[in-house]
Amino acid sequence: MLVVEGTSKTGIGKPLAAVLGAGFVEAGQRIFPDGESEITIEDHEEGEDVVLVQTTYPFQDKRLLELYLMAHEMKRRRVKSITAVVPYLAYARQDRHFEGKNNIVSISAVLEMLGSAGVGKLVTVAPHKKEPLAAFKGKVAVVDPIRDLASGIKGDFKDPFILAPDKGALDFAKAAAEVLECDYAHIDKQRDRHTGDISIVNAPKEGIDSKDVVVVDDMISTGGTIAQAARFALSHGARNVAAAAVHLLMVDDAHEKMGAAGVSRLYGTNTVNFEKAKLVDISELIAQSVRRT
Amino acid sequence: MLVVEGTSKTGIGKPLAAVLGAGFVEAGQRIFPDGESEITIEDHEEGEDVVLVQTTYPFQDKRLLELYLMAHEMKRRRVKSITAVVPYLAYARQDRHFEGKNNIVSISAVLEMLGSAGVGKLVTVAPHKKEPLAAFKGKVAVVDPIRDLASGIKGDFKDPFILAPDKGALDFAKAAAEVLECDYAHIDKQRDRHTGDISIVNAPKEGIDSKDVVVVDDMISTGGTIAQAARFALSHGARNVAAAAVHLLMVDDAHEKMGAAGVSRLYGTNTVNFEKAKLVDISELIAQSVRRT
Repeated sequence: MLVVEGTSKTGIGKPLAAVLGAGFVEAGQRIFPDGESEITIEDHEEGEDVVLVQTTYPFQDKRLLELYLMAHEMKRRRVKSITAVVPYLAYARQDRHFEGKNNIVSISAVLEMLGSAGVGKLVTVAPHKKEPLAAFKGKVAVVDPIRDLASGIKGDFKDPFILAPDKGALDFAKAAAEVLECDYAHIDKQRDRHTGDISIVNAPKEGIDSKDVVVVDDMISTGGTIAQAARFALSHGARNVAAAAVHLLMVDDAHEKMGAAGVSRLYGTNTVNFEKAKLVDISELIAQSVRRT
Repeated sequence: MLVVEGTSKTGIGKPLAAVLGAGFVEAGQRIFPDGESEITIEDHEEGEDVVLVQTTYPFQDKRLLELYLMAHEMKRRRVKSITAVVPYLAYARQDRHFEGKNNIVSISAVLEMLGSAGVGKLVTVAPHKKEPLAAFKGKVAVVDPIRDLASGIKGDFKDPFILAPDKGALDFAKAAAEVLECDYAHIDKQRDRHTGDISIVNAPKEGIDSKDVVVVDDMISTGGTIAQAARFALSHGARNVAAAAVHLLMVDDAHEKMGAAGVSRLYGTNTVNFEKAKLVDISELIAQSVRRT
């Protein structure tokens, strides 16, 4: 087995290879002045099982296209099998047609694209929903790192309380609360049909006072959701507020926005390399999933 | 027949539809804060022949992925056929393996990707070389716009002389010179094996004096090649120097660099929308090619 660390340089490839007892090479990349990538991958034995590691944030389109190019090349070299480890899978949220909108269900197309490049197994971490991945023709393994994330941050909190910023994050909150052996609750929200503003309609009134509140979610994009939850928690007596999410996309000024709302600590995993946060390494967990798939 | 102007908004779609007597829709695009595109394409009759127009510069990877998404969606909607008009085809120069380098032949992968999305016909303009396009499984039509480009600029020159900046542009120069009814020549160059510097080893010593020199090439990327040719022409008595190329990529400060070297006018085609140049519209030529393919 050979692990290829792709152009996104996740840093996961090397520990993954170690755990799997596999060979390891890093894809080389040269960017031409016009922005095109030239990718090189060292030659290897024919007929090997290849594991390509490529996360697709930041630069979703570039990283996806490069993943296609790398997988296609492995297919051309007649490897035995291609497993794509895509810690953060872009376009996973574009998973359905909206009535009368004629929008493209991008995730279905992306999954078919990877399949056509020869990817037979796809391993990804905490996609927004699991159902859309059924469109992939090969095997799919979904890594759920919430317990590892919670274990990794447990020592930092004396008297924690887990807060889900919306109903969608409730499962995450529950799992984290089990690991941190503490209470949890979620915020109920409503979107104003006219203004698009999102307001809190119901939220835990008790339990937050004097606690170390940890807002948990699958991902942080613009940080608006987390900032709103942090302000809520602090106004209800939280001693301090931290945020923890699997994928830290941290678009534009998300970090500053959350800081201004009172989020004093930020945790994530290494599906996306956001350097200003404490990141829990989930290579081992991914390796287990690759081994089982 | 239906022409779909893709997300790259070339402006070619509408005139193309007019010439072809086809319907016309524009793809809608919304960019999420994290950079993902949501693309919408109006519903249309089932079983139509669809022509997707998408150029792939700037933002090569994004535009290619979007082209895949749009073509895949047309396939899903069970159109009768999909023709992709890709005026500038990215990665066309990554067309071969280098000895011992293990580089990916990206153009082969890109062509297979388009084929797998259901593209049955590919129409492109002046690719760097034609041979690599043979890897595409469907039909390929190559539009050669050099005569149209030359015709479009002819009126601007009283006493022209066509200069090819290197041997590779000689065919272009010859065709342009026929249209402009003038002399032409090319510069011979050599790359220093140690420094990588490119120097002129042979060049036209006569014919340039007091002429309106037009440096022609298939594309202008960083502008270095054109700038070198312009300095050569001016130092040999050219009255002034213009540059004309099919694809004006104009990377970074290419325009300023060429201006500093004495290039006073710049011409191109609308395969790439570089607004600071005079662009010759080649929609009609592309339409003829679509009709024939």
